[in-house]
Amino acid sequence: MKVKGRHFETIWIHPDNGKVVQIIDQRQLPFEFVIEDLTTAGDMFAAIRDMHVRGAPLIGAAGALGMYLALLEAPDGIGVSSYIDRMAGYLKSSRPTAINLSWAIDSVVEGIRSCKGIEEMAGRALEISLGIISRERSNCRMIGDHGLRLIEEISARKPDAKVNILTHCNAGWLACIDYGTALAPIYMAHDKGIRVHVWVDETRPRNQGARLTSWELQQHGIPCTVITDNAGGYLMNRGEVDMVIVGSDRASPDGDIVNKVGTYLKALAAKDNNIPFYAALPSSSIDWQLENGAMSTPVEERHRDEILYVEGWSDDKPGRVMIMPEESAIVNIGFDITPARLVTAIITERGITKANKIDILNLFPEKNQKPVT
Amino acid sequence: MKVKGRHFETIWIHPDNGKVVQIIDQRQLPFEFVIEDLTTAGDMFAAIRDMHVRGAPLIGAAGALGMYLALLEAPDGIGVSSYIDRMAGYLKSSRPTAINLSWAIDSVVEGIRSCKGIEEMAGRALEISLGIISRERSNCRMIGDHGLRLIEEISARKPDAKVNILTHCNAGWLACIDYGTALAPIYMAHDKGIRVHVWVDETRPRNQGARLTSWELQQHGIPCTVITDNAGGYLMNRGEVDMVIVGSDRASPDGDIVNKVGTYLKALAAKDNNIPFYAALPSSSIDWQLENGAMSTPVEERHRDEILYVEGWSDDKPGRVMIMPEESAIVNIGFDITPARLVTAIITERGITKANKIDILNLFPEKNQKPVT
Repeated sequence: MKVKGRHFETIWIHPDNGKVVQIIDQRQLPFEFVIEDLTTAGDMFAAIRDMHVRGAPLIGAAGALGMYLALLEAPDGIGVSSYIDRMAGYLKSSRPTAINLSWAIDSVVEGIRSCKGIEEMAGRALEISLGIISRERSNCRMIGDHGLRLIEEISARKPDAKVNILTHCNAGWLACIDYGTALAPIYMAHDKGIRVHVWVDETRPRNQGARLTSWELQQHGIPCTVITDNAGGYLMNRGEVDMVIVGSDRASPDGDIVNKVGTYLKALAAKDNNIPFYAALPSSSIDWQLENGAMSTPVEERHRDEILYVEGWSDDKPGRVMIMPEESAIVNIGFDITPARLVTAIITERGITKANKIDILNLFPEKNQKPVT
Repeated sequence: MKVKGRHFETIWIHPDNGKVVQIIDQRQLPFEFVIEDLTTAGDMFAAIRDMHVRGAPLIGAAGALGMYLALLEAPDGIGVSSYIDRMAGYLKSSRPTAINLSWAIDSVVEGIRSCKGIEEMAGRALEISLGIISRERSNCRMIGDHGLRLIEEISARKPDAKVNILTHCNAGWLACIDYGTALAPIYMAHDKGIRVHVWVDETRPRNQGARLTSWELQQHGIPCTVITDNAGGYLMNRGEVDMVIVGSDRASPDGDIVNKVGTYLKALAAKDNNIPFYAALPSSSIDWQLENGAMSTPVEERHRDEILYVEGWSDDKPGRVMIMPEESAIVNIGFDITPARLVTAIITERGITKANKIDILNLFPEKNQKPVT
């Protein structure tokens, strides 16, 4: 989407040098817009581990291009096979829990198996990486197209007023290649001339809403207002929210949604106020193994420092403040689970489905495998 | 309650000089424990306006003692009556929306009317102020005594485990004279040897949970854990919350609760998980005029800077960081309204009542005025 009026994606090949990958260093956002050149697998490892890039679809693409960079610097001849395995393991270890990362790296490793020589392998790795990028971009665009209908329906009912949409965390283009998941329908609606306004939950503790979602919406010219995570319920009471759209880190085939902690509270408030609550996600986020819902999904507990300190900008440079007694006990829950009964519908690249097993499997019939007898 | 092992209240007369009021400067908490001497009405005005002291019961006591300080520096003889009115208006203007402040100052003004001479007036003002302090302290202690029963009941059902209590914002002794409202039952339980553990919502945007509640509980030796405002719902899903207790800035006679924004979201989550949700408040917080519930109560919108910047401690001194693009639109909602249907019961100084008009009026029959015919 747009940054200072110019179209950007989150990762691309340097226009003047096909052996360099470029990314936006998201750690500096929203305070500085830094484009970073990556020329080695080591550069890519650090960019993923240290969260210059984040968001499942983006991390997958980054891992694949990391293999491309590894092949550019590879020794030819004897030993290349073990080099590839070693580099694949190395890149996967940069964010060990990211499913997309392993999947994308394995795709490259599989795809180059039949190639002859390092040069052909590198060419094939680039091709596969660009294919992954293209597929992620296209999935997000399709999520946007389907979700747009929901915004259009609300807009048609209140033609003289803006459609107010609440979102939590960052499920925008910065987490993907372009468009985003939760934000894709909003970009589509805005670009089509529908008046939208977004309530952006700041999303403690890492403030991805305040830092990233508000920045990317503002850059694209979409009116938005930052609120604390505490405020959404009251705004719903007051009739100032028409719909909620969130992303999802993982969904169960019966419609439970695992997403950034706090999502469940917004879903409860939406239900209590008769406001539709949507999760937007590519079908690759549906974990078809979760046959009995997502409630038993292990939830990541993260480091206490993310809550003890708040990071931001101070005197024109990065800074942080401690916000409680240093010796405080702290528990930092990363995600929560929104049960399907609170989810109005799920927006996927293939269409919109109610959040239950029958409807989800109707949309993805190839997943409806008969048990082996 | 205790600070570094010693008993403190939030406001008192200097033990060696009856013409000096002492307070804890709460702006520095939890990073520094500063006791401040106030000797003039101007000192008290600044202490209230700039939030060295905060919390409705404490502000009332501070306003009354501000009148005492004003009388100590008053001119005797002609003009004293207009001086008193002027100083009353001045002190009330320090936090114009605080109902307790006006009420306490008016109590002093009324009470000294029959006194002869400035000296007698000052003595009477001190007496009235100490009476207000005593009544606030005693109300909180009684709220604690009544609420203790609820904790004891849970403890009896799980004798080998701690009772986990979630609270939002700061409704502790720092907001009152001693004990607090929501925290009073917790202090009573702990002092009685019941094993309690408190989940402390950090309470964005001003982080009173992280800064004040966690500090006062730790100082008194009560185990507590700070969490983001987003996390409570998931902890309830996981069975790690036995009860929720919050304070209240205002309640309607039919049981709606106006409290710090985010309270409503926790009440929804408690209901969804069959966890009891209590509001603890002195009956002076019941607004008997709100005959049709509290939902129409005007809610304070506060300054955007409270969300744009996070204040804390940095390099051993106060500091702040900006956490989003400076030009972001921001809405800062101060409170929300929890409807009575989500409130299990209300804990008052007179006892525990269900959150409905009949039961509340049974506890306060003197408020059940027949309509004039």
